Amino acid sequence: MNQEFLKRINKIKENMSENNIEACIISTTVNMLYAYGKVIIGYYYIPTQGEPILFSKRPSNIPGSVPLRKPELIPDLLKERNYNIPTSMYIEGNEMGYGYWTRLKNCFPNCKFVDSTQALRTVRSIKTDLEVSLLKESGRKQVEIYNIIPSLFKPGMSDNDLSIEIEYQMRKKGNIGLFRTFGQFEAFMGSLLVGENASAPSPYDFALGGAGDYTLPVGANGSIIKEGNSAMVDFNGNFTGYISDCTRTFSYGSLTSKAYKAQKVSIDILNRFQEYKEGDICEDFYLESLDIAKKNGLEDCFMGTTQQAKFVGHGVGLVVNELPVLCKKSRTILKKNMAIAVEPKFIIEGVGAVGCEDTFIVGKQGTENITNIDRNIIDLTK
Amino acid sequence: MNQEFLKRINKIKENMSENNIEACIISTTVNMLYAYGKVIIGYYYIPTQGEPILFSKRPSNIPGSVPLRKPELIPDLLKERNYNIPTSMYIEGNEMGYGYWTRLKNCFPNCKFVDSTQALRTVRSIKTDLEVSLLKESGRKQVEIYNIIPSLFKPGMSDNDLSIEIEYQMRKKGNIGLFRTFGQFEAFMGSLLVGENASAPSPYDFALGGAGDYTLPVGANGSIIKEGNSAMVDFNGNFTGYISDCTRTFSYGSLTSKAYKAQKVSIDILNRFQEYKEGDICEDFYLESLDIAKKNGLEDCFMGTTQQAKFVGHGVGLVVNELPVLCKKSRTILKKNMAIAVEPKFIIEGVGAVGCEDTFIVGKQGTENITNIDRNIIDLTK
Repeated sequence: MNQEFLKRINKIKENMSENNIEACIISTTVNMLYAYGKVIIGYYYIPTQGEPILFSKRPSNIPGSVPLRKPELIPDLLKERNYNIPTSMYIEGNEMGYGYWTRLKNCFPNCKFVDSTQALRTVRSIKTDLEVSLLKESGRKQVEIYNIIPSLFKPGMSDNDLSIEIEYQMRKKGNIGLFRTFGQFEAFMGSLLVGENASAPSPYDFALGGAGDYTLPVGANGSIIKEGNSAMVDFNGNFTGYISDCTRTFSYGSLTSKAYKAQKVSIDILNRFQEYKEGDICEDFYLESLDIAKKNGLEDCFMGTTQQAKFVGHGVGLVVNELPVLCKKSRTILKKNMAIAVEPKFIIEGVGAVGCEDTFIVGKQGTENITNIDRNIIDLTK
Repeated sequence: MNQEFLKRINKIKENMSENNIEACIISTTVNMLYAYGKVIIGYYYIPTQGEPILFSKRPSNIPGSVPLRKPELIPDLLKERNYNIPTSMYIEGNEMGYGYWTRLKNCFPNCKFVDSTQALRTVRSIKTDLEVSLLKESGRKQVEIYNIIPSLFKPGMSDNDLSIEIEYQMRKKGNIGLFRTFGQFEAFMGSLLVGENASAPSPYDFALGGAGDYTLPVGANGSIIKEGNSAMVDFNGNFTGYISDCTRTFSYGSLTSKAYKAQKVSIDILNRFQEYKEGDICEDFYLESLDIAKKNGLEDCFMGTTQQAKFVGHGVGLVVNELPVLCKKSRTILKKNMAIAVEPKFIIEGVGAVGCEDTFIVGKQGTENITNIDRNIIDLTK
């Protein structure tokens, strides 16, 4: 195992030890990518003591792995290798279907199964230096595309038309396309909100919604970008498997003065996050953001109108919605190398959505913005 | 409820009655789209007797729905509406996480929970006439793009380069982009296999694999399309929420005679499926396909080489891998309005992948191909 994955496995083992768990089985895609570094259909068995074993169903030809037809064989395969059968085990209870959990439970009838979902998400929330560099690479490429968005615009375009041009440029730059998420939450490559569509509530827990279409109800809904509209671009920056998250607002001509004021408040909030650092509390930043919005008379349109999102930021990484969440009651303490997207957004009547989002790496002295590009509203026609 | 969804709900209720199930709770995205027609975060409660109730967490403003904060409130909300608390209930055990199932189980401690995964997939496998027309619309649009693929090719392109051009055209034609799947199976918009990459085994249960990249190990891997290579295009036709599935093989110049022979055998197998009809058995077609491949001396490269797929076709619909599966031991009887993609494919040494895939609607007299376009290998340079 190379040093990087040894580091990650040790982080998982540390969490297991703290919680008196003897072993962990990983089988879902994102955790497999995190712990093993590749997508494997199978089971990655990590004991607190000893080397992990990869039981691989597909592909079956991985050097160093144990080919496996069915999970029922795992206990005997462990015994053959002189591993103890654990009495407690972390299993992915949130993303692994009930049927799969039950089948695995029947393989280990005397073992206590503990849901590992939060534990593994917590481990993943603090990035290694390699993960930070992959996020930075994504951020750098993402903003290169954001820079050319005005050149992609033509009067008469719909939100979908402009989206497709952005997607095309993103893909040509190496964006993997796939938008991995945690939980019941789908999206294609990103969201472009124009005019009134910004306030259409989505079933998904997006910062702002958008009607989308009936089969994928989020983001662009075919609205023509008209003079006086804002166009908010919130795409995923998945260039490395690690997703940077960045939002910029564009305009067709001039917007109302309230729109520019709200944009300035969004920038103020982001600047305030720049001063947050290891040791600070997630909730404090959320409350401070609310407070800044309130002081500027913008609390009614902060993070939506008809359906306001109850957070102002979220972790990013292998999925777009990692831990921590910057929301009320989150007493999570910021740690060095957490990667957090902060997205103070507003909906302005007659205009659409405004605001920015940047991805930050938490440090000991402050946070570092890794999606560094002009935060002002850019006029698409200039 | 409109007639279409009444029809679908009645199909679900029929299955429930046959299995002595008193109620069904639907909460996963695909089944919600199927039964309610929209993506809702919440619970769609369908009793055998009486009207369904939509308990909606988000959006919370749906006319006729019951807003819900948490599932624990469902039993009381049912009683208030004079619904009996069921003693048996269908719950989505495969796609709903263990944690969610357990939480729901605690809300109904005296109710027997039965995994509905297979039942609902079986119901979904036979399309309504509206669903068939949505699939046909997807198929029509998909082949329009396949028709222009040679015009998108330029010598020196990699598989990714050509993929991106196809994706771009697909999106401009109205493809939703999202590629919904069942189970542990991911893809972006489709797969393009060039040369040797065709035989790289993927962890996903694709007909053929392809190395992809480490974060999404399927399909294109950056191979340059060279003279003598085949380029197999297998994209999703998700233009309506219903996914048509079609594969065509292109070539850079001429291929070996074995490649053209295998292509002919693939076409023969597809033509044979055209004669299958309601009442025929899935396994029979799989065995017949194997037999045709064998008679032509192509069994070693049929459906892969290093890792051979054990099926030759699959249902399509809201996800790309619906029921039924055309594989060994599948005694499923073909029914009118099943939608099935058949994909006899071969890997030819020194060339790459060849073969075709078409989506068929099963009828009483035969099957109808809804991705109707020339099946021969098209030379990209002509």
